[in-house]
Amino acid sequence: MAASHSLDTLIQALRRLPGVGVKSAQRMAFHLLQHDRAGAEQLSRALHEAVGSVQHCARCHTFTEAEVCATCLDPARDATRLCVVETPADQAAMERTGAFKGLYFVLMGRLSPLDGIGPREIGLQKLMERATDGTVQEVILATNFNAEGEATAHAISEALKGRGMHVTRLARGVPVGSELEYVDLSTIAHALVDRR
Amino acid sequence: MAASHSLDTLIQALRRLPGVGVKSAQRMAFHLLQHDRAGAEQLSRALHEAVGSVQHCARCHTFTEAEVCATCLDPARDATRLCVVETPADQAAMERTGAFKGLYFVLMGRLSPLDGIGPREIGLQKLMERATDGTVQEVILATNFNAEGEATAHAISEALKGRGMHVTRLARGVPVGSELEYVDLSTIAHALVDRR
Repeated sequence: MAASHSLDTLIQALRRLPGVGVKSAQRMAFHLLQHDRAGAEQLSRALHEAVGSVQHCARCHTFTEAEVCATCLDPARDATRLCVVETPADQAAMERTGAFKGLYFVLMGRLSPLDGIGPREIGLQKLMERATDGTVQEVILATNFNAEGEATAHAISEALKGRGMHVTRLARGVPVGSELEYVDLSTIAHALVDRR
Repeated sequence: MAASHSLDTLIQALRRLPGVGVKSAQRMAFHLLQHDRAGAEQLSRALHEAVGSVQHCARCHTFTEAEVCATCLDPARDATRLCVVETPADQAAMERTGAFKGLYFVLMGRLSPLDGIGPREIGLQKLMERATDGTVQEVILATNFNAEGEATAHAISEALKGRGMHVTRLARGVPVGSELEYVDLSTIAHALVDRR
C-alpha cells in the first residue's frame, strides 16, 4: 500500500487495536508521522513499559504494577464486602460514586460462551476462594445489565449461594434525573417489581 | 482513573491518536494488556522504527525510508506529467487504477487556514520548483473534491498558470456504476457542464 516498509508495518500493527480498520490505521500512521512524532515515541514507550510492568493483582485481579494493588492493601476499606465488576473501568466508575468502601474482584471479562470465554477465563474459581476467605460477608454483583453481564451475575450467584454466601445485585431501576416517558418499558417494569 | 501509573500513561498516550477519546483509549489499553500483549510490543516497536526511519522523499515529499522514493527513481515513469495529491493514501489510490504512469507530488495536507495550514505547510514553494524543472509539461491536480481540496487546487493552479504551466484537474462527473437517481445534484450539474 505505502511506499515504505516501516510505514506498512506500522499500519498493520495499528490494526491490532480494537475497532481500528485499515483506513483508520492509515490515518493514524500518517497523522503521527506528519504531525506528532513526539506522540508516536511517547506511545511506543508507554506500550513497552505497560507490557513490562502491568500485571494482575493477586487478590482482586485488577491491573496493577505491584503484587497486590493499593485498594486491596488499604486497611481503611471494609473487607466484609466484596464487589464483583467486569473491568477496571467499571471499578473506576464504582469508585467515583464514593458510595462503596469495600473491596473488589475484577473479572476482566464476562461469560460469553460464543467467544470462548467461560468460567475459567473470568477466574470464577479464584473468585470462589476469595469470597470464602472467612472475612467476606456479602458479595455485591455489579456486572453490566446486558444479557452477558446478567448471565455472568447469575452463574456467580448460583455458585456462591451453593456455598452459603450472602449475594446481592445492584438494583435495577429508573436512572436518576430521567423522565419516565423516555425510560424503556423493561426498566420501568423492573423498577415497579423492586419498588421500596 | 486506573490503579496503575503505567496504565494511566498508556491511556493518555493512546489518546494522541486521531479520533481516539478517553473511552476508546481505555478499551484499547485493556484489550492489549488483557488479550494481546504481543500486539502491544509489536506496535511499540513499529512506532519506534517508523519514527526513526520514515522521512519525506526529497523530490515528491511522500513518506519513504530512502533519500528519494522508489517511484521518483523509476526510469520507466513519464517524467513529463506530475500528479498533485493530498496524501500517500490518495497516491496509492491513483496507483491502484493503473491509469497513470507519471510522477507525483504529495502535499501531505491541504490548505486549511482555520487549522493554520497555509502554503508553507503544504510545500507550495517546493511544488513550484519541482513543477518548473523544465521536464514537467503537465501538472494534474488530484486533490479531493471537497471545499478545502478545491481551494487547494485553485491556489496551486493560479500559482502554476502564473508561471506559464499547463495545469489540469481530474474530471468531476457521475461515478462509474452509479444510477443517476441517487447521484447528488451538484455532481450531475458538473457532469453536464463537462460533457464530452
